[in-house]
Amino acid sequence: MFAVTILGNNSALPAYDRHPTAQVVTLNDQILLIDCGEGTQMQLSRYKVKRGRLNHIFISHLHGDHYFGLIGLITSMGLLGREIPLHLYAPAGLDEIIALQLKVASTSLPFELIYHTLEKAELLIDTSKFSVECFNTKHRIPCWGFIVREKRHPRKIDKEKVLEYEIPSSFYNALKNGNDYSTKDGDIIRNEQVTIANTPARSYAFCADTVYDESIADITKDVCLLYHEATYLKDFADRAAERFHSTTVQAAMIAKKANARQLLLGHFSSKYEQLDDYLKEAVEIFPNTHLAIEGVSFLVK
Amino acid sequence: MFAVTILGNNSALPAYDRHPTAQVVTLNDQILLIDCGEGTQMQLSRYKVKRGRLNHIFISHLHGDHYFGLIGLITSMGLLGREIPLHLYAPAGLDEIIALQLKVASTSLPFELIYHTLEKAELLIDTSKFSVECFNTKHRIPCWGFIVREKRHPRKIDKEKVLEYEIPSSFYNALKNGNDYSTKDGDIIRNEQVTIANTPARSYAFCADTVYDESIADITKDVCLLYHEATYLKDFADRAAERFHSTTVQAAMIAKKANARQLLLGHFSSKYEQLDDYLKEAVEIFPNTHLAIEGVSFLVK
Repeated sequence: MFAVTILGNNSALPAYDRHPTAQVVTLNDQILLIDCGEGTQMQLSRYKVKRGRLNHIFISHLHGDHYFGLIGLITSMGLLGREIPLHLYAPAGLDEIIALQLKVASTSLPFELIYHTLEKAELLIDTSKFSVECFNTKHRIPCWGFIVREKRHPRKIDKEKVLEYEIPSSFYNALKNGNDYSTKDGDIIRNEQVTIANTPARSYAFCADTVYDESIADITKDVCLLYHEATYLKDFADRAAERFHSTTVQAAMIAKKANARQLLLGHFSSKYEQLDDYLKEAVEIFPNTHLAIEGVSFLVK
Repeated sequence: MFAVTILGNNSALPAYDRHPTAQVVTLNDQILLIDCGEGTQMQLSRYKVKRGRLNHIFISHLHGDHYFGLIGLITSMGLLGREIPLHLYAPAGLDEIIALQLKVASTSLPFELIYHTLEKAELLIDTSKFSVECFNTKHRIPCWGFIVREKRHPRKIDKEKVLEYEIPSSFYNALKNGNDYSTKDGDIIRNEQVTIANTPARSYAFCADTVYDESIADITKDVCLLYHEATYLKDFADRAAERFHSTTVQAAMIAKKANARQLLLGHFSSKYEQLDDYLKEAVEIFPNTHLAIEGVSFLVK
């Protein structure tokens, strides 16, 4: 299971029951939260995401529509008795704001907040199952995108073959990790004779808020699912550039250049009540485009 | 028109689609906001309250469920081009938090924020039409209640009588203000002979978060509508006291002692999904009790 669930898709301010940016990435037993606009804790409840399983929160930048919901989520976790540390990945400054808000409330959290300040493109998390890296985007203030990659699955045991070659089950884990087997007689059973390749590793890129920037296509090369902001329709390219945002067409061009498999558009301007034109404009350039509709989960495949 | 519209009625954290505290007081052409929990700007939209007409916001205390929605509301007002100054009445510390949040976003608002720090019981607003005063409540951190009073209406002219007594229209304003009229012959026409009493001045008291405290009944004496928190049902009086909150029965006792006309209960604990017992327990002591249900407007009468 590798999916992205949209909790908020609007830019700047909430409108037409669309919420500011927040997304949940589910990767097997992991739940990651990317951005946390106002109302995110309500949206988590609405879409039945278990906040207790949330251990990593990524904040792209400190414009309010990307983090005003964080303090509420954190204090609610405290009220619900959380004890497990929570990792926060964000630009410098967030720690000071949260510390001040806890201080005026005379509140101390029953769990540890572990801050990871985003300062350069780097690997933020690297486990045996997945990794998360950040990259800089070009916005009005320091802003970061994130790429979540699952680790390549281990190979699968071919049950008939391992019995045929009489390989002991104690060696199965070594086989899954790609090792060959040596028999007592010194014969080598090559890994691919007794295992089957698993599905290739999948990846999700969240490109945050950004002006049109082709370097994002290089950074996100061959990603399975690319989320790119499209604040405006194509006619507003000037306004987009001026405000360090992108249009439908620009987002689609990045997806095409990146050779992404699917494109997810979001961060819609409150100028537009109807979103149909976003899709129409993008699919002309990149057919496999979807709108980041709230409550919908998109499989990374 | 004097009414209170409930935008949020839950305590501590949002639950069961109940939101943290926020209320709109409408007094003729004035709209006042009392408390501003997370999601208040969405609730304002949902219940079609025009935020452009909002010039005064009162924050009872700096626990997050009473103010986390303020920064979002303020920045949205800025994005929508507000130019009129906005008055904020709150305990010390709020200005620093907001300044920091604007700074990290490199944002300057297109309107002025005028802070009024709550430090002692005093008159905060005093116009010819209404007044707002604050009073201290006993909570874990500094906390303030608010009383909104309309000014006593002028008396109404009795049109038949003023003609009968041949009182010149230039004297009508003096009549409305309660003056008697002297005829050329030196006769006195008493004010009540030619005017009719208007409805009495109405008042609303918002008692914020508080432990059971009988002094609130003195402060809110004879108020028309009394909002009192009732975080817990009566069986949890010990927990209420420990956490500086009140129960249903305690809220009802305050309303009774205050000789209030109506009681509004809110700040419900997330322990309770159903609210029926709140009403049942309170009406036994104070029959004219209502639950602060979100989206409902209660007339101050």
